[in-house]
Formats: sequence, structure tokens, C-alpha cells
Amino acid sequence: MKIGIVGGTGDIGEGMAMRLSPLFEVIVGSREKDKAEATCEFGIETLRKRGQECSLTGVSNQTAVDDADIIILAIPYKHLVGTLETLNGFEGKIVISPVNPMEKRDFFTCVPPPEGSAALLIKKLLPPTARICTAFNTIAANRWKLLDEDLAYSVPVCGDDAAAKQQVMGIVNRISKLQAFDAGPLAVSQLVECLTPLLLNIARYNKMKDVGIQFH
Amino acid sequence: MKIGIVGGTGDIGEGMAMRLSPLFEVIVGSREKDKAEATCEFGIETLRKRGQECSLTGVSNQTAVDDADIIILAIPYKHLVGTLETLNGFEGKIVISPVNPMEKRDFFTCVPPPEGSAALLIKKLLPPTARICTAFNTIAANRWKLLDEDLAYSVPVCGDDAAAKQQVMGIVNRISKLQAFDAGPLAVSQLVECLTPLLLNIARYNKMKDVGIQFH
Repeated sequence: MKIGIVGGTGDIGEGMAMRLSPLFEVIVGSREKDKAEATCEFGIETLRKRGQECSLTGVSNQTAVDDADIIILAIPYKHLVGTLETLNGFEGKIVISPVNPMEKRDFFTCVPPPEGSAALLIKKLLPPTARICTAFNTIAANRWKLLDEDLAYSVPVCGDDAAAKQQVMGIVNRISKLQAFDAGPLAVSQLVECLTPLLLNIARYNKMKDVGIQFH
Repeated sequence: MKIGIVGGTGDIGEGMAMRLSPLFEVIVGSREKDKAEATCEFGIETLRKRGQECSLTGVSNQTAVDDADIIILAIPYKHLVGTLETLNGFEGKIVISPVNPMEKRDFFTCVPPPEGSAALLIKKLLPPTARICTAFNTIAANRWKLLDEDLAYSVPVCGDDAAAKQQVMGIVNRISKLQAFDAGPLAVSQLVECLTPLLLNIARYNKMKDVGIQFH
């Protein structure tokens, strides 16, 4: 199983690539292939120093889509539409959205598109056979990168394709101490995408860093 | 400090009364005073059997507002406007909203009023000197009632009045193992009120009971 990270040179994508590549074959996409290659070299070297082997290759975003079975859209919300418009070939693929439509005003708030959520917007933009799930919405970029620290968080996973959702939950459960929870159909992404701005507010007003969430 | 629970004979109010009355002077309000008195008798007896003393008195909703320093609106969202229209005397009082505007369709979803949240609607309905905070939104009725079980949950608290918010956080932190987190101004209630429908979906799709939340 090959996982492609679109926008994989960004803050979140980079940490994801380092956490995922010892477990799965990972290809990191970027608008600039050179940048993706540099991110992968850094990741391979970082993991080598820790005695971890990995499978990590830098490619273009389009190649990340073409060559992967499962695609993670590690794109900031403001670049989501622009990036998806330049890509094709999502037919039949599992597409994971960790995207949160949010803004910082006086406080962090959720600014969903008319479709109701970033995930539902992605559903509208991609071909109908794309198997879209949400996952990883609440894991902060810094946490992905701190490889010495466990990711002891809960991860709500939404999706309308039951088999795809099961596969995504399986991936989540293999990463560090993440625990996947089925949060229902893709439309529940409206609620999931509100979590991160709330966590950012809590971090800010309680002087905490990178607040995460657990359900129990 | 006297705490008045409006709607205190409902599912959540009853459990709250039993958890709060060994710690604070609690008056339970109801549309029917008899019902409030019966709830309190049951609560006092339950606590007595556990060797706990308490201060618990049944009154009308209006008396709960008039006699309390801090008022908890333990009202289902659908009865919120109707109940508040029958009450007055909120001037200068701390008012806690645990209210979640939600509906069960194919799944649980958040259906906020045009004001943006139940808390902001309450702000519109009450006099401007009422010091409104949100708290306890995510603690399930059953959990309040299971007195043998710790409430080991995080409680986001929103509010525009800093002193009122500190006081509410102090109350939260005295109850079982609840931990209060400052979630920012009252407008952040929009995000907080999305949590409970998400938790209900997670409970449903993972066959869990009364899912709660922790931030860390």
C-alpha cells in the first residue's frame, strides 16, 4: 500500500511523512519536485540517525496522486481549491482530508464553505468515485514532528465509504498511540472541523502548547 | 455562594444537583415546585445513604433565579426560549449555559440559531448585565448521575466577563475530577456546542456509552 502526501513539504506534511514512512511506502508530493526531494532527504536522514528505516520518495503533487493508493491532502484550507484544480486522477482512490477551514480573528473560529465543511467541498471538487475520509484533523504539526513523543490522541474518522473508512482507521491505529474512532458519515466532518480552532483557543487562553484531544 | 439549577428536575439537572449539593448550597428549580422538591428528596436520600451531607432545596424556576448567585440553565435547547421568556431577575447574576443546539437526523448534528450558538442566543434574551458563561456542555446526564464514578473530563469554559469565568472555572474544578479550560470569549461557544453531537456520533458508531472528552 502506497500513501501519497499532497502538500507534503508543508509543516504538517513533513511530520506526517516521518511518522508514516517507517510503516508504509510514502511518496511526498509538492508543487516543486525539488522541494519534495529535499524534504524526503531530510526525513530519511533524521530517521536513519534514530536507527529507523523508511520508504520515502519526493515527487510532484500529481505523481503523488497517480502513484498512491491512498492520498492525504496535507494542504492549508486557503490553498485547497487552488491545489485540487491543478490535479486529476483521483478516481477510485482513498482521499484523506485533515483540512480545517478556520481563521484567526480575535480568536480562532471555523469558517466552513457553503458545502458545510472542507471535506464536503473536496467531495464536490473530486470525481464521484473518490473515496473521501476525514482523519488527522486535530494533530498539530509540531506533534507530528516530535518523533520522540508519543501521539497519544484520539482521531475521529468520517466517511461515506465503509471499506475506505475501515482502511483509514487501520492506518491511524498503526501510528504511534493514535486511536481511531468512527465518527460517522462524511457530513459529520462539519463537527470534526470545529475541533482544531477550539483546541487552538484552549492552547492560547491556557498558555498551553499543541493541545490534543482524547475521547473516552 | 448559592447555585440555582433552572430545569433541575431534568435528566442532567438531577445529576448535577447530586454532584454539586455536597460542595455548594444548591437550589433546584422546576416549572412545578412539587417536582423540584421530589427531586431534592431523592437526591438528599441518595447522598445520605452514601454518607454525604448536602444542601439541596426544591423551588420554582423563578425562585432558583431570584435566590441564587450563580444560575445553571439545565434546559434542553428546544425549551430554552420558552423557559427564559417566563423568567426574570437575571441582572448581574452569573448564568451558566450547558445547552447544546443539536438534532438527531441520520446522525447527530449541530443546529445553531442565527445568533451563532445557544449561549449567544441566551445573551440576546437576558439583560445586558447578566454574566453568561458556557460550561458542562459535554458531560452526559448518565455520567452526572453515576456518583461512584469519577468525572475525569475536560470542561471548556467560555465567557466575556473574566471574573465570572474565573468563578465558573473554580466551581468546575471542585467537582469530581473535572478540569476547567478557558476556551476564550462567549463567541467560542459556537465551537464548544459542536462537541456533544460529535461525541454522540462517536458513541453511536463505536458502540460506546457516554463518551467524554479530555484536552492535553
